[in-house]
Amino acid sequence: MLHDRLIKPAGSLGRIEDLGVQLAGIAGRVPPPVPEHPAIAVFAADHGVVRSGVTPWPQEVTAQMVANFCAGGAAISVLARQHEARLVVIDVGVASPLTPDPALLDRKVRPGTDDLAHGPAMSVADANAALDAGADVANTLIDDGADLLVTGDMGIGNTTASAALVAWFTGAPPARVTGRGTGIDDEMLAAKTRVIDGALDRLTSAATPTQVLAEIGGLEIAALAGFIVAGVARRVPVLLDGVIALAAACVADAYAPGVALGCVAGHRSPEPGSSVALAHLGLDPLIDLGLRLGEGSGACLAVPLVRSAALVLNEMATFDGAGVSGRDD
Amino acid sequence: MLHDRLIKPAGSLGRIEDLGVQLAGIAGRVPPPVPEHPAIAVFAADHGVVRSGVTPWPQEVTAQMVANFCAGGAAISVLARQHEARLVVIDVGVASPLTPDPALLDRKVRPGTDDLAHGPAMSVADANAALDAGADVANTLIDDGADLLVTGDMGIGNTTASAALVAWFTGAPPARVTGRGTGIDDEMLAAKTRVIDGALDRLTSAATPTQVLAEIGGLEIAALAGFIVAGVARRVPVLLDGVIALAAACVADAYAPGVALGCVAGHRSPEPGSSVALAHLGLDPLIDLGLRLGEGSGACLAVPLVRSAALVLNEMATFDGAGVSGRDD
Repeated sequence: MLHDRLIKPAGSLGRIEDLGVQLAGIAGRVPPPVPEHPAIAVFAADHGVVRSGVTPWPQEVTAQMVANFCAGGAAISVLARQHEARLVVIDVGVASPLTPDPALLDRKVRPGTDDLAHGPAMSVADANAALDAGADVANTLIDDGADLLVTGDMGIGNTTASAALVAWFTGAPPARVTGRGTGIDDEMLAAKTRVIDGALDRLTSAATPTQVLAEIGGLEIAALAGFIVAGVARRVPVLLDGVIALAAACVADAYAPGVALGCVAGHRSPEPGSSVALAHLGLDPLIDLGLRLGEGSGACLAVPLVRSAALVLNEMATFDGAGVSGRDD
Repeated sequence: MLHDRLIKPAGSLGRIEDLGVQLAGIAGRVPPPVPEHPAIAVFAADHGVVRSGVTPWPQEVTAQMVANFCAGGAAISVLARQHEARLVVIDVGVASPLTPDPALLDRKVRPGTDDLAHGPAMSVADANAALDAGADVANTLIDDGADLLVTGDMGIGNTTASAALVAWFTGAPPARVTGRGTGIDDEMLAAKTRVIDGALDRLTSAATPTQVLAEIGGLEIAALAGFIVAGVARRVPVLLDGVIALAAACVADAYAPGVALGCVAGHRSPEPGSSVALAHLGLDPLIDLGLRLGEGSGACLAVPLVRSAALVLNEMATFDGAGVSGRDD
C-alpha cells in the first residue's frame, strides 16, 4: 500500500491517510487526483412550517441571505473566496422574490413548501422535480470541471425538516434528533418536536424515500439528495456540511444504499441530529468546532484537509526513493 | 462585539469565532490581521536517550529527514507548499553530518544530547543557547514578514523527553503521559517510562525551568520554547503542533506565565501527553485526526482554519449593512 512506503511511520497521518485511501477508491486510481476546482452548491428554499412557530427568524431572511451569498458578504462567500471555490446558489423554492444574479441559478420548483405540521410539505411530483434539479446541478458543475462537490443550504426552518428526516431514516426518536437550530428556547423546542412527531405519525413504513421527502420537505433537502447521488455516481467526492446535508445524505443513501461511501463528512454540528445521522451513514467528520451556521460553512472549512489528503499521496517521497532508514525491529 | 453584528446567528461559527477573538486580542486590533505569510520552523536535534532503547528508529533518521524537509519530499514539505508557507529547518543539535541547503539554518549547539537515562541531557549553558537560537529564529522570521509562526520538530527519541517535561510541568504521573510515539511495543513502552521516572527523580522542586530543560532535553524542545516565547512577545500568533510543541509550550509558560494565551493549538495528538499538556495550558485544539507524525504536520493542517477565523471578521457583511432581518424575539 502506497501510504506505507511514504517517508513517515506507518499510520502516522491518522485519518488524513484514511481520507486519502477513500479518495483513491472514489476516483479508482492511486494516487487519487488532487481536487483543484471545488464547487460549493448552496440550495435555497423556504419551509411552510415556519408558520407553526419553530424558529425566531422571519422567512424573508432566506431571500435576504441568498442576496448576500451573491453579493459576497456571507460566511460561505468569504470561505469560498479563501479556498478558490466556485460558489453557486440555486433557488429551488424561495418564497420571496429574488433579484437575478450571475451566481444565482433559478430552478424554483415552487415558492416554499406547505406547513408540514398540517399535511404534506409538497407533492411527490414536486419532490421529484427538486431531486432532478439537484442532480442536474451536480452534473453541470462536474461537466464544467468541478472535482470536489461541497454541499450548502439556506432555508429558514430547515432544521425542523432535517430532524424529521433523520428521525425517519435512522429510526431515532424525534426528541433525540431535534435541536435548537440557530437558537430557540425550550418552549419553541417542545413545539418543534411536537410538529415533527405529528408529521412522522402520518407516514407508514411502506413509504418510499420520495413519499417521505414529499411529506416532510424541504425542497433544498430534496435537491441536495439528488446532488449527492449524482456526484457520487460521477465518482467525484461529495463533501457534506452539517445536519441539513446529512439529512439529505440519509435520503440519498435510502435511494442508493452505499452512496455514503462516496461522501466525506466535513464537520460535526452540535445539532443533535448530526451525530445520529453521521453514525447511521458510517461517516466520521473532519472538523468538530461547534459550527451551526449552515450555508456549507463547515464543509468549506474542511476543503483544505481533503486537498492535503490527496497531496501527501501525490507528492511525498518514499523510503526507498529518499534514502531514509527503516525501523530496526 | 463585532461577531454579533455579522450576518449569522450569534455564536453560530462556534470555535472559529473564539479563535477570531483570540487573534484580535493577540494583535490588539479588531478585526485582526489575516495571516498571509505563515512560517514553519522545524527544529531538529538528536537525543542521547535513543541508546537506552526507547525507539525502534535509528538515530540517523533525524539527519535523513532533515535532508527530506529540504528536498521537499516530507509530509511537512507538501503541506507547506499547499499553504504557501515558508519552511525553515533549523539544526540545533543533529548528531549526524548534514549537507548545507538554502532552507537549512545551522544553529547547532552540540551534536545531540547525552542520555537522560544516566544523567543530565545537557548543561544549563547549552539549554540557554538552544533557547536563544529558537528566539532568534522567531525574531528573524517576523522581521522577514512572517505573520503566523508554526512550530515543527524532528528528533528521533523526542517523545521521551517531551513526556518527561509534560510530566514535570503538569504534575501528571509519567505513566499517564508516556506513549508509543511513532510506534513501540509494550516492552519498549515500559523501558521508556522507567527512563522518564528515573530522570524526574533526579530533579528537585527547586529546579528552574532551564535546569529542568538541561536535565531532560532536548535541544529542539528548548529551541521551540524560546521560539514560542519570542513569537508571543512580538504579538504574532504561534500555532502549536503536537506533543513536542506542547512540551515546549509548558516550558515556555513556566518561564512566562500566560504565554499560552498567545498560542493556538493546531491539533490533538493521540500521544497521551498531548491531552494532559493541552489541559494544563488551557488550549483546545482545532483538529483531532489521530496524527502522530510530528514535523509540524498537525499545526500546518490547521493554518487555513486560522486564516478563516480572521477572514470572516474582516470580510463578512453586518446585519445593518446587508439589509438582513434580525430575529423576531
